[in-house]
Amino acid sequence: MTLETSVGTSDADSITVMGRDLSEELLGRHTFTELAFLLVQRRLPSAAETRMLDAVLISLADHGLTPTVLAARLTHTGAPESLQGAVAAGLLGAGSVFLGVVEDTVRFLDAIGEDVAGGVAREIEAGRRIPGLGHPVHKIQDPRTPRIYAIAEETGVTGPYLAKLRAVSAAHAKQTGRELPINGAGVAGAALADLGFPPGLLRGFALLARTAGLLGHLAEEINSPIGMRLYREVDERAKYAPPTGE
Amino acid sequence: MTLETSVGTSDADSITVMGRDLSEELLGRHTFTELAFLLVQRRLPSAAETRMLDAVLISLADHGLTPTVLAARLTHTGAPESLQGAVAAGLLGAGSVFLGVVEDTVRFLDAIGEDVAGGVAREIEAGRRIPGLGHPVHKIQDPRTPRIYAIAEETGVTGPYLAKLRAVSAAHAKQTGRELPINGAGVAGAALADLGFPPGLLRGFALLARTAGLLGHLAEEINSPIGMRLYREVDERAKYAPPTGE
Amino acid sequence: MTLETSVGTSDADSITVMGRDLSEELLGRHTFTELAFLLVQRRLPSAAETRMLDAVLISLADHGLTPTVLAARLTHTGAPESLQGAVAAGLLGAGSVFLGVVEDTVRFLDAIGEDVAGGVAREIEAGRRIPGLGHPVHKIQDPRTPRIYAIAEETGVTGPYLAKLRAVSAAHAKQTGRELPINGAGVAGAALADLGFPPGLLRGFALLARTAGLLGHLAEEINSPIGMRLYREVDERAKYAPPTGE
Amino acid sequence: MTLETSVGTSDADSITVMGRDLSEELLGRHTFTELAFLLVQRRLPSAAETRMLDAVLISLADHGLTPTVLAARLTHTGAPESLQGAVAAGLLGAGSVFLGVVEDTVRFLDAIGEDVAGGVAREIEAGRRIPGLGHPVHKIQDPRTPRIYAIAEETGVTGPYLAKLRAVSAAHAKQTGRELPINGAGVAGAALADLGFPPGLLRGFALLARTAGLLGHLAEEINSPIGMRLYREVDERAKYAPPTGE
Repeated sequence: MTLETSVGTSDADSITVMGRDLSEELLGRHTFTELAFLLVQRRLPSAAETRMLDAVLISLADHGLTPTVLAARLTHTGAPESLQGAVAAGLLGAGSVFLGVVEDTVRFLDAIGEDVAGGVAREIEAGRRIPGLGHPVHKIQDPRTPRIYAIAEETGVTGPYLAKLRAVSAAHAKQTGRELPINGAGVAGAALADLGFPPGLLRGFALLARTAGLLGHLAEEINSPIGMRLYREVDERAKYAPPTGE
Repeated sequence: MTLETSVGTSDADSITVMGRDLSEELLGRHTFTELAFLLVQRRLPSAAETRMLDAVLISLADHGLTPTVLAARLTHTGAPESLQGAVAAGLLGAGSVFLGVVEDTVRFLDAIGEDVAGGVAREIEAGRRIPGLGHPVHKIQDPRTPRIYAIAEETGVTGPYLAKLRAVSAAHAKQTGRELPINGAGVAGAALADLGFPPGLLRGFALLARTAGLLGHLAEEINSPIGMRLYREVDERAKYAPPTGE
Repeated sequence: MTLETSVGTSDADSITVMGRDLSEELLGRHTFTELAFLLVQRRLPSAAETRMLDAVLISLADHGLTPTVLAARLTHTGAPESLQGAVAAGLLGAGSVFLGVVEDTVRFLDAIGEDVAGGVAREIEAGRRIPGLGHPVHKIQDPRTPRIYAIAEETGVTGPYLAKLRAVSAAHAKQTGRELPINGAGVAGAALADLGFPPGLLRGFALLARTAGLLGHLAEEINSPIGMRLYREVDERAKYAPPTGE
Repeated sequence: MTLETSVGTSDADSITVMGRDLSEELLGRHTFTELAFLLVQRRLPSAAETRMLDAVLISLADHGLTPTVLAARLTHTGAPESLQGAVAAGLLGAGSVFLGVVEDTVRFLDAIGEDVAGGVAREIEAGRRIPGLGHPVHKIQDPRTPRIYAIAEETGVTGPYLAKLRAVSAAHAKQTGRELPINGAGVAGAALADLGFPPGLLRGFALLARTAGLLGHLAEEINSPIGMRLYREVDERAKYAPPTGE
């Protein structure tokens, strides 16, 4: 069996990452964001692409005391000696309900092909939510969306996904008479797709961004713990209802 | 109960991260590395600090097909639909044996106080390994180490931890007559401590860096899977030895 | 907000699990398998149901050095101080490719309704694999299958799912002229469904069973480590192929 | 490289677990609890040992809406499609603060050797908590403790660890004039040690027990979700405090 990889290797004197000498070509010469792009796309990004990717990562890093953040903090409450366990627990909730939208938006844009109006109409008729539209808090406009579009234009990175997502939003408003904002996860997905990332990896950038957010929350949890107090309050308020109907 | 947080919040029109308006003050104005610094230290880094942190993150991102990378790839083999599960599995091995050294080095430097020679002598007498010294592959010199020191000097970020780690290495060489290189995890820990990060969070930056590395490996695993072949070979070669001695 | 739960509660003098006093009614009076049934179905099982559930759990506990076991062992290699991390990593690969079949089989049996021949024909025409049929190692017969069917008959627990799975296998053989054995995951899923467990929880019993299997592997890993040697061999044999085509 | 294992193997016709033919010798002949014992101790337990292990597992399975249960439920809120992710998140908090006591108690009993009074005195003087004593809810008596001791006596499984734990409790009461109950985690650890399990695996049985508890909570979460409501309330009540002092 040959185990072949292009990601990285090392010998006594050197470490190689994606074909580059780590010490000579990467350290001190590139940013971590450029490295993340390189690791997945196997080429270094342009300055414009880096600026776009930085913005997308920042846009996805934190959204307050979300369920995944609470899971990480509560895990830290029980196992403070294992920071990796708390971070892992915080990533495991990045599934279909929240961050999955990053990926679902792009898969939807791929699935509808050129017929945006028809694709949108089918979802509306089927009573399905259109991924990338609407947000429980940002009901009129998601503040991330116009800014990401603006940076995409400034950097010239705008591509077919960002354009099509706007067309989807317009078609939805026209067909329903109701404007739903393009949400931050949707615009992030479209921007990542325009940057050339494959659908199966889009969620990965949400995970990378959220890892930074989790570090912020865990740094705070170490100094001003919420987890134990949250548990105590839940425990006090929990109403026990014995199972019925055996 | 009041649940207080400084990390992030949002209302209908805005998202705030560490006291900054996400759209107005962060997106398009800062890099993801700067955001990670802000999230943990609650202030934005200088350009020099950013350059140092970028180098440290890049230095820790990948070291080939390590046990944690293999765990992530094998998890993807069984659950390709859950990228977050594969990434989480890949982070869970970032414990005491490998990436824990990032943190252990700084805790050792803290523990020995001013008496470097004495602190080193105690470890040698006790037959304990000194965290941050030695590497199974980079036996003469870890290629990351001189580069990180050089960037620290260029940027002026060199502080007491990097200096003391060098003193530890020199004391060890003098006392044992045997030069052990300062390893990449050790120098990364010292650099992060000189950047002002608390010991309990240092491992967190290794986790952030490794998340990018894991995305590179999982992108490759999707296209050229290793996991299933590795399993098949292990399965074929495994020798079954029934338990004895009941 | 009321947080209502029927699972468990406690006060200064007592602990209650699913409406039973833990010390008086459960400890020393029931088996762990009965408790697991109680926790999910909210009633205690009959002796026959317990016997069936014990058999299903045992049948799913181990299948040698599988990818998930290797992930757990490799995680232990890096973080031996965190047994929970190694177990968690070992569970995270229990997804669609391997243990998902437990659930997929039952969802398929539900989906085809009464028309078994038609349902099977559609899958064959579409070139899809039928969940619950076929096994890469047990090509003629999965040794778990006849035994689980026999226990189901002895205990009288046989229900519509086990019967329908047999009909699916017969229909597939008739339509393709090729006998594929009912596999262990499929028969386990059907047996759990006949025991009254809902589809969304079936995978959970595979996780419970595998947790026991993982403890066996981790006990062995502590005494006779495989993880580090596996990594070293992979590292030696890995062929580095720099990325091409930028 | 030889990869040797005693846990399990399989060929076309048979599956072997710990030297037993799965279908002929285990399925329908033993309980899941006996299998878990076999997997770690490499021998089948006696009926008395099985009864004791069943009691210990049941005693550890659930303690209401604990931090780890909340982490699992909140993870399910975000990723309901990945039951394994929710279970894994629920296990990751089984660290030093809660379930670690199972292991810590036994390590303490090992560490103090024969001099119980002296060992206890040292902890009291050092102002350290004695593992296995005291419980925030069960202040007078942990209801699990007398029951586990009674089952140990009935089954004749009482051994040096359970006896020594009682001596520790008595020494503590004598030295401090204050009775602290032996807690459920402590008595579980001592019972597992008397059953012959090594210290490094004790936490593993807490993980196995908690996996059943988590299935109960996740079954309930699917039908009567708490996670999303808990998040919404936390989100509403969270007070944002911008970082100060830059």
